[in-house]
Amino acid sequence: MIRACLIGAGRMGRDHAHHIHLSHDATLYAVADSHFPSAKELADKYKAKAYSSAEEALLDPQIDAVVIASNTDTHADLIIKAAKANKPIFCEKPIDLNLERIDLCSAALKKAGVPFFVGFNRRFDPSIADLQARLKQKAVGRVEQIFISSRDHALPDKSFLKTSGGLFRDMMIHDFDMMRWLSGEEPVEIYATGSCLIDPSIHEFGDLDTAMVIMKTASGTLCHINNSRRSVYGYDQRIEVFGEKGMLRTHNLAPTTVEHSTHEAVIMDKPHLSFPQRYKDAYRIEMDHFFTDVVKNGKEPSVSVIDGRRAIVIADAAEESYKTGKPVKL
Amino acid sequence: MIRACLIGAGRMGRDHAHHIHLSHDATLYAVADSHFPSAKELADKYKAKAYSSAEEALLDPQIDAVVIASNTDTHADLIIKAAKANKPIFCEKPIDLNLERIDLCSAALKKAGVPFFVGFNRRFDPSIADLQARLKQKAVGRVEQIFISSRDHALPDKSFLKTSGGLFRDMMIHDFDMMRWLSGEEPVEIYATGSCLIDPSIHEFGDLDTAMVIMKTASGTLCHINNSRRSVYGYDQRIEVFGEKGMLRTHNLAPTTVEHSTHEAVIMDKPHLSFPQRYKDAYRIEMDHFFTDVVKNGKEPSVSVIDGRRAIVIADAAEESYKTGKPVKL
Amino acid sequence: MIRACLIGAGRMGRDHAHHIHLSHDATLYAVADSHFPSAKELADKYKAKAYSSAEEALLDPQIDAVVIASNTDTHADLIIKAAKANKPIFCEKPIDLNLERIDLCSAALKKAGVPFFVGFNRRFDPSIADLQARLKQKAVGRVEQIFISSRDHALPDKSFLKTSGGLFRDMMIHDFDMMRWLSGEEPVEIYATGSCLIDPSIHEFGDLDTAMVIMKTASGTLCHINNSRRSVYGYDQRIEVFGEKGMLRTHNLAPTTVEHSTHEAVIMDKPHLSFPQRYKDAYRIEMDHFFTDVVKNGKEPSVSVIDGRRAIVIADAAEESYKTGKPVKL
Amino acid sequence: MIRACLIGAGRMGRDHAHHIHLSHDATLYAVADSHFPSAKELADKYKAKAYSSAEEALLDPQIDAVVIASNTDTHADLIIKAAKANKPIFCEKPIDLNLERIDLCSAALKKAGVPFFVGFNRRFDPSIADLQARLKQKAVGRVEQIFISSRDHALPDKSFLKTSGGLFRDMMIHDFDMMRWLSGEEPVEIYATGSCLIDPSIHEFGDLDTAMVIMKTASGTLCHINNSRRSVYGYDQRIEVFGEKGMLRTHNLAPTTVEHSTHEAVIMDKPHLSFPQRYKDAYRIEMDHFFTDVVKNGKEPSVSVIDGRRAIVIADAAEESYKTGKPVKL
Repeated sequence: MIRACLIGAGRMGRDHAHHIHLSHDATLYAVADSHFPSAKELADKYKAKAYSSAEEALLDPQIDAVVIASNTDTHADLIIKAAKANKPIFCEKPIDLNLERIDLCSAALKKAGVPFFVGFNRRFDPSIADLQARLKQKAVGRVEQIFISSRDHALPDKSFLKTSGGLFRDMMIHDFDMMRWLSGEEPVEIYATGSCLIDPSIHEFGDLDTAMVIMKTASGTLCHINNSRRSVYGYDQRIEVFGEKGMLRTHNLAPTTVEHSTHEAVIMDKPHLSFPQRYKDAYRIEMDHFFTDVVKNGKEPSVSVIDGRRAIVIADAAEESYKTGKPVKL
Repeated sequence: MIRACLIGAGRMGRDHAHHIHLSHDATLYAVADSHFPSAKELADKYKAKAYSSAEEALLDPQIDAVVIASNTDTHADLIIKAAKANKPIFCEKPIDLNLERIDLCSAALKKAGVPFFVGFNRRFDPSIADLQARLKQKAVGRVEQIFISSRDHALPDKSFLKTSGGLFRDMMIHDFDMMRWLSGEEPVEIYATGSCLIDPSIHEFGDLDTAMVIMKTASGTLCHINNSRRSVYGYDQRIEVFGEKGMLRTHNLAPTTVEHSTHEAVIMDKPHLSFPQRYKDAYRIEMDHFFTDVVKNGKEPSVSVIDGRRAIVIADAAEESYKTGKPVKL
Repeated sequence: MIRACLIGAGRMGRDHAHHIHLSHDATLYAVADSHFPSAKELADKYKAKAYSSAEEALLDPQIDAVVIASNTDTHADLIIKAAKANKPIFCEKPIDLNLERIDLCSAALKKAGVPFFVGFNRRFDPSIADLQARLKQKAVGRVEQIFISSRDHALPDKSFLKTSGGLFRDMMIHDFDMMRWLSGEEPVEIYATGSCLIDPSIHEFGDLDTAMVIMKTASGTLCHINNSRRSVYGYDQRIEVFGEKGMLRTHNLAPTTVEHSTHEAVIMDKPHLSFPQRYKDAYRIEMDHFFTDVVKNGKEPSVSVIDGRRAIVIADAAEESYKTGKPVKL
Repeated sequence: MIRACLIGAGRMGRDHAHHIHLSHDATLYAVADSHFPSAKELADKYKAKAYSSAEEALLDPQIDAVVIASNTDTHADLIIKAAKANKPIFCEKPIDLNLERIDLCSAALKKAGVPFFVGFNRRFDPSIADLQARLKQKAVGRVEQIFISSRDHALPDKSFLKTSGGLFRDMMIHDFDMMRWLSGEEPVEIYATGSCLIDPSIHEFGDLDTAMVIMKTASGTLCHINNSRRSVYGYDQRIEVFGEKGMLRTHNLAPTTVEHSTHEAVIMDKPHLSFPQRYKDAYRIEMDHFFTDVVKNGKEPSVSVIDGRRAIVIADAAEESYKTGKPVKL
C-alpha cells in the first residue's frame, strides 16, 4: 500500500482524504495542515498521523506520495519542496496563478524527476472521458464546434473572489483544459466578454460573474465557453461537440431519476448541487489513476505540468481580451 | 377528387370533417346527421351539402364514399345500408358491441364487395406504426412481453358510461387491437381484474374504472394491459415490447418541448390532453390511407372487419374473466 | 373567407399554399408566378386562379391579401406594388438584403397604411412561443445569457450560396430576430467569427459555413449564436435562456418517440430533417395570425417591418465583425 | 468503530466487504468462509482476520455485528447461531425459502432480542426511496396502480436455477417487497402466469424465465409485476405508481450521460449491466443504515423479519397460481 500524505485539511482536503481511503492501492498515512487541529481531526478519522506543517511531514521517510489540497498560493512552494523530497505529487488545480512560478515548479519537477499530476478532475468524469474517447475514435469525424457550459451553484464569498485570480483563472480554467483536451488543439485566438449581473460590486475589483468566450484553433475549429458564478437549479456542467459526422453531448446528473407527472407538469429532479456530488466518481477515478497507474505502475500522469501551464496562458489571454474588448492572439 | 359523405356531426364527426379536408384526394361533399342543424353548421363550414338522414344521403349518386362517425349503436345499420348502396366505408370503432350484429355487417360487406375500414387510429400513429414495422423486421427478435398503458384524461359522464358497453369494449378495445397487431398472434387465455377507484358508483352498473389484464398467446408471449378512466396529467398512452434482442417503447407526446430548470426541479410539459391532440397525425394518416390507398388506388384496407370483430371477442372474454374472477380461454 | 393571392410557386410557395388551405378564414384564390406552368399546376391543385405575373394579379379586385414567397430579390418591389394596390401583405423573410430598399418598402407601407407581416416563423413555434411567454412572465427572472443553436441539414447548392447574401443575412437572420424577441433588448456590440470547414471553396466568395457570435445588450445580457450549414443528424434548432431564477430550454423534435434498447445502446429517432417538418405547426400558426388576427380582426401584425430591418442591421454588423476580426458597436 | 464479521466470501460477500469498508462507523474485522482461502484472500485485502467457519468466528468476543452473505440455504442456521451469540445481524435476502425455517429464525431472534435486518437493498436506492417518501406524502393521492419491471441481465447457470427456489422466490421476491412497501398494503389476491421463452429446458424442473403477475389489495389497488431472466440491454429495473393526483416513475441508470447524434439516430448509453453497478449506492446506504442507525444508534431496522417472511408468503402464492392456472387468495 502506498502511504499518502495529504497537505491541506480544508474542504477539498477532507474530500480527498475520502478519495484516498477509497483507493485500493493507497492508504491515508498522514495529514498536514498549518492549522493543527484540522489536521488532527481529519487524521484521527482515518487513523492517520497529523503534522502541523508540510515541511515536517516531508521529512517523514514513510511517506510515499503527497496530495496537495491547500490554498492555491501555497501550491508552487509545496510542489518545489515535495519535488526536492522526491515524492510523487498530486496537486489540485491551478498549479499557480503566475506563469513564472509555474515555470519554477516545472524546473524543480524536471530536476527531481518525480511524477507530477494536476487535478483537472473533469477529464476523469465517466461521461466526459467517454465523450473524449469517442472523439479520438472520430465518432463525429472532424470536430467543427465545441460548446462548454459551466455554472457554479452559489456565488462564492466576496473575500474568496477578491483573491481567486478572477473568473477566468479560477473557474473557466477547467473549461480551457477541456477545450484543449477535447479538440486536441491549442487556441490561436480568443475573444472574451462578460458582465457583473449577479453582483455588480464584483466589478469594483475588476472581476465579472457572467462570461462568454469564443476561441479558434489553427485548423479553424470554433469553441464557445460560458460561465456563470450562480445557478439556482444546481451545478450545471454540459459539453457539446459538433462535427462533420454528428454531435456528442454530455448532460447533467441528478440525485434521483424520479419523474412526477401532475395535473400541471412533468417534474424531474434538478442536477446535483455542486462539484463534490457531480464529480464524486471523477475524484475517485483520478485518485486511482494517480496512485495505481502513476505511483504504483510507473505510468506517465495523464495530466501534466504543461497542461496546468497552458490553461493559465489561455486564462491570461481571456482576461486581456475582456479588459481590452478585443480578440487576443495566442 | 373523391366526394365523401360524413355521417354524424358530433364531436368525432367534426374532427373527421377536418381530417377529410386535409386529404389531398377527397373533399367533404356532404354531412348527414339526424339533428339537421348540426349537419348544416358543419357542412356550411366546408361548403358541403347537409342531409338530415344518412338514408337520404346514400341516395345521392354524387357520393363516392362514406365516413361513419355517428353513435356506436347506429354503426351496424349504417354499414349494411352503405354496403347496399355500394359505397366504400370508413367506420369509427367499434363496429358494434354485439358479435351477431358484426357478423351481419360482415355478410353484407362480403355480398356488396365494398371496401371496409374500421378506424383503429393508433395503428396510424407515426410512433406506433414505426414500432410495429420494427417488430416485423425482428428488431427485438422473438417478442416475449408486451405492455400497453392507456389512460384517458377525464372520466366520461355517467350517462355515457352506462351505455358504453363497459371499459373492456369501449376503451380497452383499442389495446386489444394493439396486442393482436404488435404480437401478430391471437391471445389464447386472458385474465382481467379491476376496481372502481375513481368513482365507486360505477360498480353499480357492473362496470369498472381501473383495470389490469394479462393475456397469453399460443407461443407463450405474455401481454399486460392497464387502463384508467382518469389521468390528471393528460392522455397517457405508452407501449413497450420486450424480446430476446432488446426492447422497443413509445412515449407520450407533449404540446411543447420546453424544459424549465428552477431552484426546485426540472419541469417539462405534461402530455397532450386527449386523443384529438395526441392522435392528430394518426387521424390524418388513416384518412389518407382510406381515401388514397383504398378508395383511389384500390388497395386492401389495412384494418378489416375481422380485426374489428376479434377485438370484441377478446373484450367479451375480458369481461367474463373480470366477472368470474378466473382466467378465460379463447 | 379572405381571398389570398400567393406570389411565387417555388418550394416555399408550395408549402405556403398548403398553409393557406389549412386556414379557417382564408382560401387560396390565386397563384402568381412568372413561370406560368408552376403557377398553373399549384393553382389547379387548390382550384385557384393562375397568373403569370404578380402585377397582373394585383389588378384583380377579388384579391383580399397577398402572400409573397418569391425570390428574395423580388420582395421589395412586390411589397411596394402590393402596398400601392392596398393589399395586406405577408412577406417571407428577409424583406431585402439592402437597408435602403427596406426603407423604401417601409415608406410605401406607411403611405398606404396596409398591414405588413414578415415571416419570422420561429416566433410561432409552440415551444419557442411558450418559452418567450414564460420569459415575459419572468419565469427565469432577469435574463443573463441566451444561447441559440441553428444548424441546417444539408449544405445548399453553391449557386444559391453565392447569391444568398451570406450566412449572416440568409441564415443567422432568424437567430438575430430570436435574440431581439427573447431578450426584449437590442444588441449594442457584436463579435462574429467563423470558418469554412464543410466546404473550403465557400471562402472564395467571402462566405463561411460555420459561425459563432457573441452579442451584448446595454443591460449586460450576453447572447451566443452558433450556425452550421450542415448537420448530418437533421435540422438542429435549440434555444437556452439562463437567468437569475433558472433556465428555460427548447429541444429538437423528432418524427417518432420510439426508443430502442439493444445490447449496444438505447437508440432514439433523430430530429426532423429540415424546416418544413420542424416548423410545420409554426407555419400554420403564423398564417392563422396573418389571416385571422390581422386581416380579419384588424390586429397589429406581431412581426413588423422594423423587426425585419433590425435583423438585417445586426447581420451587417456581424459580417463586418467577421471581416475585420473585431467586435462591432451597434 | 463497530467490528463487523462478514460471513461468506463469495461474489456478494466481496461486494459487502467493500460496502463495510465505506461505512464511517464500521470496520471489516473478520471474514468467515468454509472455503478458507477465499476468506483469507478477502480478509487480507482489508487487513481483517480470516475464519474457516462462522461458528468459530461467532466465538470471537471482538465481533460486534455480523453480515450474512453466504448461500441462501445456510442463512437460517447462521441467523439462529448469531442470535444465540447475541450479535446484531444483517442478512442478505431471502431469509430462507421455507416458511417454517423463517419462523424458527423469528423465534430465535425474538428470544435473543438482537437487531435483525434483511437486505432488501432496493428500499435504499435513492430514486426508489425518494419515490416511496413522496407516496407517503400523498404526492399522487390515493394509489391506484403499481407497475414493477425487473429484468436481469443474463440468464443464470442452470445449476443455480435448479436450486434457486424458482423465479418467484429467488427473483420476484424483491418486487413483492417493493409492492408491499410502496402500497403500504398486503395483496389479498394474486394471479401469476409465465413462459419459458429464453430457455425451454427450464420448464423441465418446473420453473419459468418470463413471468407476469397481477395482485390486488383489500382496498382495490392493482399491482402488475413482470420479470425476465435475461435482458440484452442490461439490468432493467423500473417502477411506476399511478394515482388520483398523478404518476411517479423511476428510470434506469446508465454508466454515462453521453448522447451521440448521427446521420441515423440519437444514441444513448444502455443501462448498467447488473445489480452491483445499479444498486451501488443502495448497498452503501443500507450498510450505513445497519451500522450507524441500528447498531450504533439503536434504531429499529427498517426492514424486519416480518418483511422477509411476507415476501416468501406471496412468492409461494404466486407459484401456486402459476402451477394451478388460477388466481390465489392470500
